[in-house]
Amino acid sequence: MTQHLFKPSTYYHSIGGHEPVLHIQPGDQVTTTTIDASGRDPSGEPITAPGNPMTGPFFIDGAEPGDVLVMYIERITPNRSYGWTTQMLASNVVDPDYVPNLFRFQKDQPWEPALWDLDIAAGTATLRSPETKLGRLALPLDPMLGCFGVAPKRGQSISTATSGPYGGNMDYRGFRAGTTVYLPVSAAGGLLYLGDGHAVQGDGEIAGTGIEVSMEVEFRVDVVKGKYIEWPRGENADCIFTVGNARPLDQALQHATTEMMRWLQEDYNLDAHSAGILLGQTVEYALGNVFDPAYTMVCKLSKQVLAKLETAKQ
Amino acid sequence: MTQHLFKPSTYYHSIGGHEPVLHIQPGDQVTTTTIDASGRDPSGEPITAPGNPMTGPFFIDGAEPGDVLVMYIERITPNRSYGWTTQMLASNVVDPDYVPNLFRFQKDQPWEPALWDLDIAAGTATLRSPETKLGRLALPLDPMLGCFGVAPKRGQSISTATSGPYGGNMDYRGFRAGTTVYLPVSAAGGLLYLGDGHAVQGDGEIAGTGIEVSMEVEFRVDVVKGKYIEWPRGENADCIFTVGNARPLDQALQHATTEMMRWLQEDYNLDAHSAGILLGQTVEYALGNVFDPAYTMVCKLSKQVLAKLETAKQ
Amino acid sequence: MTQHLFKPSTYYHSIGGHEPVLHIQPGDQVTTTTIDASGRDPSGEPITAPGNPMTGPFFIDGAEPGDVLVMYIERITPNRSYGWTTQMLASNVVDPDYVPNLFRFQKDQPWEPALWDLDIAAGTATLRSPETKLGRLALPLDPMLGCFGVAPKRGQSISTATSGPYGGNMDYRGFRAGTTVYLPVSAAGGLLYLGDGHAVQGDGEIAGTGIEVSMEVEFRVDVVKGKYIEWPRGENADCIFTVGNARPLDQALQHATTEMMRWLQEDYNLDAHSAGILLGQTVEYALGNVFDPAYTMVCKLSKQVLAKLETAKQ
Amino acid sequence: MTQHLFKPSTYYHSIGGHEPVLHIQPGDQVTTTTIDASGRDPSGEPITAPGNPMTGPFFIDGAEPGDVLVMYIERITPNRSYGWTTQMLASNVVDPDYVPNLFRFQKDQPWEPALWDLDIAAGTATLRSPETKLGRLALPLDPMLGCFGVAPKRGQSISTATSGPYGGNMDYRGFRAGTTVYLPVSAAGGLLYLGDGHAVQGDGEIAGTGIEVSMEVEFRVDVVKGKYIEWPRGENADCIFTVGNARPLDQALQHATTEMMRWLQEDYNLDAHSAGILLGQTVEYALGNVFDPAYTMVCKLSKQVLAKLETAKQ
Repeated sequence: MTQHLFKPSTYYHSIGGHEPVLHIQPGDQVTTTTIDASGRDPSGEPITAPGNPMTGPFFIDGAEPGDVLVMYIERITPNRSYGWTTQMLASNVVDPDYVPNLFRFQKDQPWEPALWDLDIAAGTATLRSPETKLGRLALPLDPMLGCFGVAPKRGQSISTATSGPYGGNMDYRGFRAGTTVYLPVSAAGGLLYLGDGHAVQGDGEIAGTGIEVSMEVEFRVDVVKGKYIEWPRGENADCIFTVGNARPLDQALQHATTEMMRWLQEDYNLDAHSAGILLGQTVEYALGNVFDPAYTMVCKLSKQVLAKLETAKQ
Repeated sequence: MTQHLFKPSTYYHSIGGHEPVLHIQPGDQVTTTTIDASGRDPSGEPITAPGNPMTGPFFIDGAEPGDVLVMYIERITPNRSYGWTTQMLASNVVDPDYVPNLFRFQKDQPWEPALWDLDIAAGTATLRSPETKLGRLALPLDPMLGCFGVAPKRGQSISTATSGPYGGNMDYRGFRAGTTVYLPVSAAGGLLYLGDGHAVQGDGEIAGTGIEVSMEVEFRVDVVKGKYIEWPRGENADCIFTVGNARPLDQALQHATTEMMRWLQEDYNLDAHSAGILLGQTVEYALGNVFDPAYTMVCKLSKQVLAKLETAKQ
Repeated sequence: MTQHLFKPSTYYHSIGGHEPVLHIQPGDQVTTTTIDASGRDPSGEPITAPGNPMTGPFFIDGAEPGDVLVMYIERITPNRSYGWTTQMLASNVVDPDYVPNLFRFQKDQPWEPALWDLDIAAGTATLRSPETKLGRLALPLDPMLGCFGVAPKRGQSISTATSGPYGGNMDYRGFRAGTTVYLPVSAAGGLLYLGDGHAVQGDGEIAGTGIEVSMEVEFRVDVVKGKYIEWPRGENADCIFTVGNARPLDQALQHATTEMMRWLQEDYNLDAHSAGILLGQTVEYALGNVFDPAYTMVCKLSKQVLAKLETAKQ
Repeated sequence: MTQHLFKPSTYYHSIGGHEPVLHIQPGDQVTTTTIDASGRDPSGEPITAPGNPMTGPFFIDGAEPGDVLVMYIERITPNRSYGWTTQMLASNVVDPDYVPNLFRFQKDQPWEPALWDLDIAAGTATLRSPETKLGRLALPLDPMLGCFGVAPKRGQSISTATSGPYGGNMDYRGFRAGTTVYLPVSAAGGLLYLGDGHAVQGDGEIAGTGIEVSMEVEFRVDVVKGKYIEWPRGENADCIFTVGNARPLDQALQHATTEMMRWLQEDYNLDAHSAGILLGQTVEYALGNVFDPAYTMVCKLSKQVLAKLETAKQ
């Protein structure tokens, strides 16, 4: 296992077949940085165009189409003393007739972000501006990666504004340190990208942003040869989960549930009958973003339930 | 405050302007029973047609259109030693192409439920039949009400298979003991119905049932005069929440989010600007059923966050 | 065959088990009137509350659950010299971000309809007010029934603002004179309601109204005993069609297509294989309203194609 | 104006920034060929991978981001004596519970297309195989382009299985000879691709294919400098139209309607008020495909109505 310290100098705004920035081996660990969604670095300077610029792609030696790329998210730490959010809810998360009631800047007002002071030691994000009825609201830090993924099928190169079977801009709060993600490889080397770090985020990313900040990120990679998955999978200490990315949410939920059904049958010794009975009474769902062209729904199964299953079968 | 012990003898399969079974006062407490979704009572006998038969309606004296009916769910206890679920996932929660892979009874097989032994003392539901790879899977009890509500607008009478602004078949796991629900009154007396108890249920009710069982239920009612809400609201020890019922899920989420925006502005001293910033980074969503004609999405805001708000504003 | 001239004196705002206003026989013809969606009669006076008040219900002797009620729409004639529309597009038919750009009355302005002069002899509807860049725009009359249906299942009574398997507020332009409609009977006598006449309407009823006007309507009824259909069916000189009512439109389309698949197999001597190949290359879709809680999609198959089929099979 | 006769030798399966195959000038006419969706040429031989391989891209000199590319479709003629379709309806266009009733090949059966004999002189497509209850069904030819578009924004390269603001796999029957299409340019030269010709197609492309065939295509191009459109627009002898591509259909309809609202205000001297009243009573909608990841909805306004508008305003 090699430990790589990678300092990026180029950033991509689409996930696809771009030139790899580093070749690594299965088992290797990478410490790197990501810039924020607006293209600003730890100093706050814009160093590339806005729109979820990605660090990477990392070429994982030996990863080929039909394999699974494993990404262990080990650490995500803001490396800047402030983050920003929009001041506005997305218009698609409220009733159409309510849209005109949402806060919007007047025509002669410049667009301005809300700014949040980040105190890593205290573990808080505190609203600095604008002045609102929220005062100096302080929220607990919960750093996560909003966008990461591997090169999609058919040689596509897809905007980091959206997501698909390959990952992408999923904005699921569960993509925090301690989570392992499984992604379907569609191109030689997988081509792993990551970025769009959030210090804090509400479910659904309904303001269109989390608290956007540049990050220091540590992750390890691995490859499972010859294993086919259709949608991202993951796990943490508490659960296994699958991810569907589509609109409407109903379809994202269908993708995630179907992937979980396949997983239970492939790796947990269940058939469709027993997997259906199990999920019916134990499944949990969580929401990724409902802001992007593709929404994200996560289908979860508790490891406590999986453990009961072991007991029950004996 | 009067304590009523009400033993139902008629059950309704729609929520609407049926003849009240009991008149009660704001502040009164009711102890009653509900039969299971198939119309079976504590002895397991079918005593009415299946399809979420409701106990009620209860006429709350003084409740009028434009008021809010408050229902405190104090206790929900299974009063039978077994419950049942379907053995099948709903076809609308998986990819359309995956539907033929789901377990279905063969044409010459009778439809049979899965049966679960309920041990109230131990707090478990244990799979009794059929024989599957799940063995004797035991799940922790978490009793809830799948369906309850008040008479809808315009004199409608709507099947207990679906839901709307008036409540109905929402199948949200959060409708358990300790939860307070606020419902918009559209008819004199409100006309409160309840039933469809589940001993256990997965998110989304994706098998079309929870563990269906007859219940003993205790609740209190109250009336808030002259307060308009558009969708059900609720709260428990941890959070306040709003409920949207519609398809697709995207629209249910819009209803719930809009209702939360209104609530924050009406009762929490926020304006649309600050409420938007707040929800953007702190909102949580939970799923009711994705099985009925109308799906259910719940928008939650943590009371910890609301408490921080108090601090921040000082 | 009896010809009934029925002058309504009560109007219902929901479709359900209300007291019949007239008993008729299969084969009978009825000439009656409908008032406009706002409850105004031919003189323009409001005679009941707004919201698609219905004429009926008509009890068709011998119609029982499990039968099909046939309604031949023979004539629909405006019986007033003007109609009205809203001045506003519905907020749900444009991009959420575009909603604030739609015309809306200012807070201090009263809501006012647009008024259209109807010239039955000339066959035109001419915009009278407001003054806009449209001037005196004249459109060809194309009278239709926006809302009609039979009592729904389970004793429900459902608002005339929406639709379902029983019909309801479908706002399909094809419901004009010369069209035959088939509706699934769920209550004794069927209980047929009709109203919400439009002198003109765009696809989708995206302004929330057609040109709303009171009408004189002639129709005949018949009953097909022991024939089960799930969704409304219809035909005219050019095509047979099926109707799905649901949100999102995708689901309405699924209902309509499935109903057409069943129809082709039941009555046109096709199996699922041949029906699928046929529809794949010949199906047409038309849009009912995209304004109500349930949207409407119509699946059509040309009678020219059906005639070719006869030739091809010989 | 130069007339180009272009014989393609490479084909792309994504629409994006590939190397241009030909540079042409605004005003130029191109006669070229497309292969069928499975990559088969006029001889029926597979010459590239299946999946809507595209002819192009054509680089239109002077076209720059922020311009509009105009494509006049002058002729589309099948250049092969047969076409093929699937034998199966897509699973997403019927009710989820109905999916198991659809025709599917058995596990031990090879997938086989239905074959259709094309008689260009007679103007018919006649079903050759399989043997079904359809016999030798003969349908009138109505050739169209299923997929065409220009390079999308942000340097993306997107699979020809889907569609977006840039065009793509829209499968709208109105993309036939005599139609003019307007596409938003996002890359230097526009980079125009075309292919996926259908000899016949039902609305929605609900079998996942039209009658797929290689084509000879003639088109002319032009560029409108400095004109911004968000979604494809078009016109023919009868109407102007706009195209939205998204899921669910509701959203595709929103995109198309919004684009039409903008068009009417930009080029037809209307404001939002008058454009809304006009569309409300005169809009028509047509369906592109409901098969791909993004569905397609077309919003149409009759040129007869536009002509009336001229009269009305005088």
